[in-house]
Amino acid sequence: MRDIGIGLIGSGYIGKTHAIAYNAHNAVFGGPARPACRALAEIDQAKADREARALGFERGTGNWQDLLIADDIDVIAIATPNALHKEMAIAAIKAGKHVYIEKPLALDAPEADEIIAVHEAQNGASRLVHMLGYNYLCNPIISTVKTMLDSGELGELVHFRGRHNEDYMASPEVPFSWRCSKAAAGTGTLGDMGSHIISMAMHLAGPIVSLCGDTDIVIPSRKDQTGAMRGVENEDQAQAIVRFASGMMGFLETSRVALGKKQGLAFEIVGTKASIEFDQERMNELRLYEGGAPDGRSGFKTILVDTHCPDFSAFCPAPGHGLGYNDLKIIEVNRLMKAIVEDAPVPVDLYAARDIELVIDTWIASAAQRAWQDVGGA
Amino acid sequence: MRDIGIGLIGSGYIGKTHAIAYNAHNAVFGGPARPACRALAEIDQAKADREARALGFERGTGNWQDLLIADDIDVIAIATPNALHKEMAIAAIKAGKHVYIEKPLALDAPEADEIIAVHEAQNGASRLVHMLGYNYLCNPIISTVKTMLDSGELGELVHFRGRHNEDYMASPEVPFSWRCSKAAAGTGTLGDMGSHIISMAMHLAGPIVSLCGDTDIVIPSRKDQTGAMRGVENEDQAQAIVRFASGMMGFLETSRVALGKKQGLAFEIVGTKASIEFDQERMNELRLYEGGAPDGRSGFKTILVDTHCPDFSAFCPAPGHGLGYNDLKIIEVNRLMKAIVEDAPVPVDLYAARDIELVIDTWIASAAQRAWQDVGGA
Amino acid sequence: MRDIGIGLIGSGYIGKTHAIAYNAHNAVFGGPARPACRALAEIDQAKADREARALGFERGTGNWQDLLIADDIDVIAIATPNALHKEMAIAAIKAGKHVYIEKPLALDAPEADEIIAVHEAQNGASRLVHMLGYNYLCNPIISTVKTMLDSGELGELVHFRGRHNEDYMASPEVPFSWRCSKAAAGTGTLGDMGSHIISMAMHLAGPIVSLCGDTDIVIPSRKDQTGAMRGVENEDQAQAIVRFASGMMGFLETSRVALGKKQGLAFEIVGTKASIEFDQERMNELRLYEGGAPDGRSGFKTILVDTHCPDFSAFCPAPGHGLGYNDLKIIEVNRLMKAIVEDAPVPVDLYAARDIELVIDTWIASAAQRAWQDVGGA
Amino acid sequence: MRDIGIGLIGSGYIGKTHAIAYNAHNAVFGGPARPACRALAEIDQAKADREARALGFERGTGNWQDLLIADDIDVIAIATPNALHKEMAIAAIKAGKHVYIEKPLALDAPEADEIIAVHEAQNGASRLVHMLGYNYLCNPIISTVKTMLDSGELGELVHFRGRHNEDYMASPEVPFSWRCSKAAAGTGTLGDMGSHIISMAMHLAGPIVSLCGDTDIVIPSRKDQTGAMRGVENEDQAQAIVRFASGMMGFLETSRVALGKKQGLAFEIVGTKASIEFDQERMNELRLYEGGAPDGRSGFKTILVDTHCPDFSAFCPAPGHGLGYNDLKIIEVNRLMKAIVEDAPVPVDLYAARDIELVIDTWIASAAQRAWQDVGGA
Repeated sequence: MRDIGIGLIGSGYIGKTHAIAYNAHNAVFGGPARPACRALAEIDQAKADREARALGFERGTGNWQDLLIADDIDVIAIATPNALHKEMAIAAIKAGKHVYIEKPLALDAPEADEIIAVHEAQNGASRLVHMLGYNYLCNPIISTVKTMLDSGELGELVHFRGRHNEDYMASPEVPFSWRCSKAAAGTGTLGDMGSHIISMAMHLAGPIVSLCGDTDIVIPSRKDQTGAMRGVENEDQAQAIVRFASGMMGFLETSRVALGKKQGLAFEIVGTKASIEFDQERMNELRLYEGGAPDGRSGFKTILVDTHCPDFSAFCPAPGHGLGYNDLKIIEVNRLMKAIVEDAPVPVDLYAARDIELVIDTWIASAAQRAWQDVGGA
Repeated sequence: MRDIGIGLIGSGYIGKTHAIAYNAHNAVFGGPARPACRALAEIDQAKADREARALGFERGTGNWQDLLIADDIDVIAIATPNALHKEMAIAAIKAGKHVYIEKPLALDAPEADEIIAVHEAQNGASRLVHMLGYNYLCNPIISTVKTMLDSGELGELVHFRGRHNEDYMASPEVPFSWRCSKAAAGTGTLGDMGSHIISMAMHLAGPIVSLCGDTDIVIPSRKDQTGAMRGVENEDQAQAIVRFASGMMGFLETSRVALGKKQGLAFEIVGTKASIEFDQERMNELRLYEGGAPDGRSGFKTILVDTHCPDFSAFCPAPGHGLGYNDLKIIEVNRLMKAIVEDAPVPVDLYAARDIELVIDTWIASAAQRAWQDVGGA
Repeated sequence: MRDIGIGLIGSGYIGKTHAIAYNAHNAVFGGPARPACRALAEIDQAKADREARALGFERGTGNWQDLLIADDIDVIAIATPNALHKEMAIAAIKAGKHVYIEKPLALDAPEADEIIAVHEAQNGASRLVHMLGYNYLCNPIISTVKTMLDSGELGELVHFRGRHNEDYMASPEVPFSWRCSKAAAGTGTLGDMGSHIISMAMHLAGPIVSLCGDTDIVIPSRKDQTGAMRGVENEDQAQAIVRFASGMMGFLETSRVALGKKQGLAFEIVGTKASIEFDQERMNELRLYEGGAPDGRSGFKTILVDTHCPDFSAFCPAPGHGLGYNDLKIIEVNRLMKAIVEDAPVPVDLYAARDIELVIDTWIASAAQRAWQDVGGA
Repeated sequence: MRDIGIGLIGSGYIGKTHAIAYNAHNAVFGGPARPACRALAEIDQAKADREARALGFERGTGNWQDLLIADDIDVIAIATPNALHKEMAIAAIKAGKHVYIEKPLALDAPEADEIIAVHEAQNGASRLVHMLGYNYLCNPIISTVKTMLDSGELGELVHFRGRHNEDYMASPEVPFSWRCSKAAAGTGTLGDMGSHIISMAMHLAGPIVSLCGDTDIVIPSRKDQTGAMRGVENEDQAQAIVRFASGMMGFLETSRVALGKKQGLAFEIVGTKASIEFDQERMNELRLYEGGAPDGRSGFKTILVDTHCPDFSAFCPAPGHGLGYNDLKIIEVNRLMKAIVEDAPVPVDLYAARDIELVIDTWIASAAQRAWQDVGGA
């Protein structure tokens, strides 16, 4: 089996998730290629060496650009703060590497367009993979939902309601961080978690064509590292009413101050034949209401993940033996391997990622205008 | 104990709920007055007599105006289709009766204003009660939530998300009825169920000052009684992003085609100190997340209705022995008795009911404008 | 419509539930007869008069035996502490009245046999109704389960697991009461709540023919009214493995010290074709797992009570508009009316009630023997 | 960091779980040692080679005894059918290897004693680790429960109710397999899933000292490979009432025909200060009822796994980002590494595993006697 050399930039929260997935991938899927952990880039050589050892990489480097010129590296995986994505992605694409970029792609749609422009200039001849890390889409339950939607099992879609709410900044005691800064993070919760629920909505229900959004800063200032109060520069929560290309009505919401929510990506889809509810906090369950049940036998069914769900059997042959958050990354890595080796499509590529940025940009513009806006509209 | 004579117009769905509540009220609450079922008005004398007997009224009448001149009747209870409310309410007020009107008050805010104008002209001297039937507000769980909000137990409010969705018209086979007609019903789901969630939002979180709404007809035509297809004239579903007077962000939604929902009035309130979730389909439960729990002991608590909830002990001395939908009406009737005898405030009076109509009117105007509108704004 | 005169003994917790049900019955069911609240007996005339007024009875009496000779009373309803049931039931039967006795029938099976002996001696010629108050059986959801079982929808039954656990005596601070005394209450939790889950098990799954039980006193002494500690004389919790006449294996449990449970009557039935779960704390829901669903579409369905459930439509024409605890008593009163007027069967009569006592007696004997015992066996 | 050489016997369901865990372990935990996948033994060389490649082992062998003499192998991991455990475990112990044996340890307690005898004879001088694979015990939620119990957070324990029910043999169409044979599997569901709930009960609540059990064959015969019907030789379901050394009452149940249950290991613990509920189908949640909450604020709290739970942070720094079934094995492997390198205790060693077998043997004997039996009693 072929080795696909991985060069990973960043060993924080999501960087470690990458590492676990690369290491576990083959015992789970047995192919079609082996992600080989070649090099890990961190802010300095010492940290890079330490993390490389801990996370199972062959070597570390304090200079991420080393990865670009390494012959044994096929994929540049970017798991760094958002403001760094553009530069790194462009460099990797120019170096002729496959890119695997953690969400969100960039700080805004124009940045995303810059990356795409380089990609298009560069990739005319070759065929390099570009994939974003939107791991929630890889859940076998979500793949099942996608199948149900594509097959018409829900009938025509009537309504989509989604949110990704957490409470990691609900306390006013949480200090000011790069996430609160426009320069470093761009948007607040919209780019961080909003991008997840937007990606989910579009993955399942198609393009969003217009929306009217609202944004809100709940905790206006936080202590910075010096102990001084500093103004929060981007939204703590946001909501929007939307319309999809199909004409379907929808609602999206995101918050980093939603006290009580820990991994609160959730959605409900109403169809004319069936309805669906999903909550990432119970990621191995799908709630399904099927119209047309016999009298007195209608109700939401709680379906546990099982061997009929795509990808699940690679983990376990027994139904209901649930997957975890990290397992979603293993599936995502498998998508990457299949894209490289088998030319398979990826869940979110540069273009789809740019469309997510476009929705966010429109959301913010609409909030400023206090009116509906077309996505990408003049 | 004093008898309060009741004259009820209408013995359909909600009329029967009234009758059950009047009959059960005293065994439950033991006072402060006894709702005495004097007369029931229906469309003809035969039906009125039949229903009066079945529902425990002393007499029936085929002419609702008979109730206005009956000396033994103190309260006119109006449980008829929406388009009839204005005429009946005005007549009752002019006759010097207390009025107890099923929601929504009228077809729109101007109609509501007409009723209020008569009330103000009439009631200068006397002190007559005017109460709307928004029974969901009378749930002991909701009263508990109200207490928590008023005492600051949730801290400052951050977000309100509410819906009232049902599926009674989800099937395209459901025929065209008066509810689909603008002349007979005014709005579609907005007046029917939307008014419930708007009343709940305002009862708990205060006035809504601006909103951007959207409305949608999902099933454009239905068979009428002749078997011919007839165009549906009002919305099947509607949603709006809103702002409350407090500045809080919120979202409201209503649908009569939400496949799977049977009594889907539900809301979530995020506060800075605690968050709350409620679903009328589990009307005896409150989900409460309290910030500040010890490490590792944070979570949503499912609290069952108990003797610490207002009104509950009148039904049962044992915690968790849940109430039903009809019991909410018994509590509402008790509010009416207390208002008449003890001058106590009512949950929703004519003014609060008009404000609900105003939100609905603004919602529809906003949807047409595709922009935010101030409620009651020029 | 015919009036059925009611004479109620006892106006405590369950006595009040009776009163509410008698008052509300006709507005709900409209027949087949009207329970007329004639007289209420309490411990003295003053209390009787006060409660009669509050609960809607025509008159009160400080002497329950007055009810026996009143011509306008057809039914003697007994809602007194257990130790009084035998004397009152026998007197009522001898007086030629219908009897409606709150559970449990008596302190033990021999007492129950005494009552039955009088009934058989007395009732040779006449046809008087004898009905026990096991109100949980009257839930439309339970009636639906019964229908499913009778029709074979679950296939052959494989396992029954039931409990009725509450926590009203979980705190050691709860004082010694008559419930802790063998003379006054007989058993502890077995007669109080155990009888409910035994009645449910036998109602749904047929006779219990053998069992091995265990009992336990968790809090050995409690303060009595004088402040002195007094030894608790009967079980705080009990459990038993059982076999039904069908051969099916089962498990029953009851506790009055199960911290966290408020109305914890719950059961699970496994069948070869479908399985069921029910919890009285969510009394309007039935969880149903149907074998034979398409691949990937299997799961427990949460079915809300609806118009297809027996008795439900009398309360409300809208699905999911849940019933409350008190509504079960209204249905039970309707069963009584139907039994008297239409000769319909009752959910639990004297014989079925005696069989429940027999299971309890066997349970206690088995615990003493530390071995299986046949129910009613030598 | 030190490598610990692993020799794994068996690459079926649970063998693959081992392999995933060995590969992922270091990226997750970063130490204290690296499980190095040296050799995989399977039934023949070809299958061994194929699986070794797929699962990340250096080499394969068709002869498991090769592992015993390999110098680079420190641990023999046994993931084979139950009837093979004894021979392999004894051989491994005699060869001076650490042993890591999948549950159940053996076919019965006498077999377990044979293994222990060899261990004691062999291990006088050296200090070799012996650990059983009871992975459910490694859940961070379960570790949290254990901490709560040990610290007295639940007060005195009042009742334990546990079950491990699944439905993988609920259909009569499931063919006769080695699991139905006494010679190959020993017991039926008792050894398979019963051992899990027994291990959980004893891990959390201490030794079981007496019990009265019952067993049942629900589907008496199944088709074998030839298509002929063959009698099932061991129990499809079993239940027992038990007493723990503390005096606490308990109930245990297991079934392989419990239609609807997929990974139905669940338990409830009632204490005098708090109560707990857990269900492996929602393995990232703990339900906790704390006595002593303020009036009207009591309820079961749903706590999501978080960074305060032991081991969780190694997987993810964000609360509520749930673990999966396979992750439990990664934690178990970490226990093994810590036992070998740091002399830390293991969750279940040979002695604890033998005690589990003893409970099973007593259960079966008690069912035959139809009476309580002391565990390990004469």
